[in-house]
Amino acid sequence: METYRGVIERYREWLDVPDHLQVISLLEGNTPLIPMPRLAEELGGGFDLWVKFEGMNPTGSFKDRGMTVAISEAVGRGVKAVICASTGNTAASAAAYASRAGRRAIVIIPQGKVAAGKLAGAIAYGADVIQIDGSFDDALNLVVEISQKHPIGLVNSLNPYRLEGQKTAAFEICDVLQGAPDWLCLPVGNAGNITSYWMGFRQYHQARQSGLPKLLGVQAEGAAPLVLGHAVEHPETVATAIRIGRPARGEQALQAAEESGGKIIAVSDDQILQMQRRLALHGLWVEPASAAGLAGLAQEIRQQRLNLKGKRVVAVCTGHGLKDPDIIVRQFSSPKIVKPELRSLEEIILGEVSHE
Amino acid sequence: METYRGVIERYREWLDVPDHLQVISLLEGNTPLIPMPRLAEELGGGFDLWVKFEGMNPTGSFKDRGMTVAISEAVGRGVKAVICASTGNTAASAAAYASRAGRRAIVIIPQGKVAAGKLAGAIAYGADVIQIDGSFDDALNLVVEISQKHPIGLVNSLNPYRLEGQKTAAFEICDVLQGAPDWLCLPVGNAGNITSYWMGFRQYHQARQSGLPKLLGVQAEGAAPLVLGHAVEHPETVATAIRIGRPARGEQALQAAEESGGKIIAVSDDQILQMQRRLALHGLWVEPASAAGLAGLAQEIRQQRLNLKGKRVVAVCTGHGLKDPDIIVRQFSSPKIVKPELRSLEEIILGEVSHE
Repeated sequence: METYRGVIERYREWLDVPDHLQVISLLEGNTPLIPMPRLAEELGGGFDLWVKFEGMNPTGSFKDRGMTVAISEAVGRGVKAVICASTGNTAASAAAYASRAGRRAIVIIPQGKVAAGKLAGAIAYGADVIQIDGSFDDALNLVVEISQKHPIGLVNSLNPYRLEGQKTAAFEICDVLQGAPDWLCLPVGNAGNITSYWMGFRQYHQARQSGLPKLLGVQAEGAAPLVLGHAVEHPETVATAIRIGRPARGEQALQAAEESGGKIIAVSDDQILQMQRRLALHGLWVEPASAAGLAGLAQEIRQQRLNLKGKRVVAVCTGHGLKDPDIIVRQFSSPKIVKPELRSLEEIILGEVSHE
Repeated sequence: METYRGVIERYREWLDVPDHLQVISLLEGNTPLIPMPRLAEELGGGFDLWVKFEGMNPTGSFKDRGMTVAISEAVGRGVKAVICASTGNTAASAAAYASRAGRRAIVIIPQGKVAAGKLAGAIAYGADVIQIDGSFDDALNLVVEISQKHPIGLVNSLNPYRLEGQKTAAFEICDVLQGAPDWLCLPVGNAGNITSYWMGFRQYHQARQSGLPKLLGVQAEGAAPLVLGHAVEHPETVATAIRIGRPARGEQALQAAEESGGKIIAVSDDQILQMQRRLALHGLWVEPASAAGLAGLAQEIRQQRLNLKGKRVVAVCTGHGLKDPDIIVRQFSSPKIVKPELRSLEEIILGEVSHE
């Protein structure tokens, strides 16, 4: 086992980063590519399926891959603080990497739009959390203005180094499979991730003829601007991580899907939650948005739109289920209460076991 | 990058497991060993410090290392269901690996002793959660009885294969550092983990002369039977993962600490929470129990009981902070609310930045 030193050290020659980079890493990346043969069978069979489980990053989501690069660049050019507008995974990741570097993270959130639990990460990692009496767009505009006027690094998705870091997930998949899969399924919200994967696969392919996957990008029906062809003013979906009506990288995502011979589709919240539950029953607990890619794959297979015979399919699960436990707890009825006696317990357990 | 296939495939020759093992893995293990040079300086300096971050396992805690072996053994001998008494990390891990194997997990919990949030994992992974109108000891006695009478696998800490799997963390540390560290600091609750580490380090040392660490086992003051020398009837600590009054492996843990030339000490809840906060401000958010090892190290250094000059120290952080977000949210006052104007935001942000 070699000493692993994070995605920048591992893939530096492939990243378009400036010399002033000062590497700040929490040993993100190197996430497992988990074979899912039983799930592939359930979905129709005849193909190989893996889940790239990005929930196994230091702060529990894929955001860490891009954040290590964004923060390393900002610190290298001497910023004392970084700033972002975010309500979830980006905030936690920015806060963690800023703290790792001994810098301040400032997180701007729109008032009343953020559940306390969802911000626990940013708070835990010591970010300075400021609510504004305005919308998310107001917050985004303000952080851009601030970062242009002051030596405060902008680490929102507009930061190009985020994409550079996120490319590394494509490299890892190619390294493990010794080539690109035939299909890559993933959730699409702000569309930075699908853009990054495509950049990564193309780059590896140009240098190494590793092949190119078709991309199946999946949005939630209530937040599907790239499927509808126009912005969504009030996006709504249970998959909060992809509840975005104006994707920052929408054009690039559409182009990537088309170039690859794939597409961007939408699935319902029901389909997302069903797939989340199904994945958990295969041992993988992911946050709702993370189930969208596989929910889309299942829909395409059901509608006989894909011929996967003999193909290799990778589904990206972007965040850990621990990020959003409330959605589980809400659905959960109180457990049965039994007397502490062997017989009572046997009755309830064996009655159930014998039905297997 | 080689295909990683989990701790059993990686270290099978080192594990005492039966031939009937049928490997069930979620690609647990291979967790990062994160260098902490700045924290080492803050604690006094002169030594090298790493954190073995076990929160980066599939279900968010070190339990997955042992569970992959326990479930692989149980499935290999044909059980249709596994059972455990647990209120936290073990339940989630058992449920995940049982689901991965297509088997049922039954989790017995004492009524009223478990917060809904703490069980979200077990529920998410589809475990059958049953409350009994009794104590944790009642629950433990019942699961032992049930597993002796029926073909239901017991995966509580009494299961010896759990320890076999947990040994692999010691192997990983030796592989990365090319030898054992001088000190290993870790939290001690049920004492299975310190026992496993010691087994692992000794085994590697016998075969490879990799050296042996001194063990610094750390309990919480309100749940410190191994420091007090007697069981604690009503253990109390904020570090719920080590809130145990009668450790299953107490004797083995004491012997391990003594053999190694180390010791088992206790720290207060305040010390634990302070170290949890401090670690997060270095970019690592761990659950409270996970901070105990480093809190103990800090105390020993402060009291000048350790000479660490030139030494290599590894601290084990057993679970991710996402496992217990409530403790963060509870301490958090509502964020400041600001008008969505550049000037208002500048005032609040720059006022603070300029104090850096």
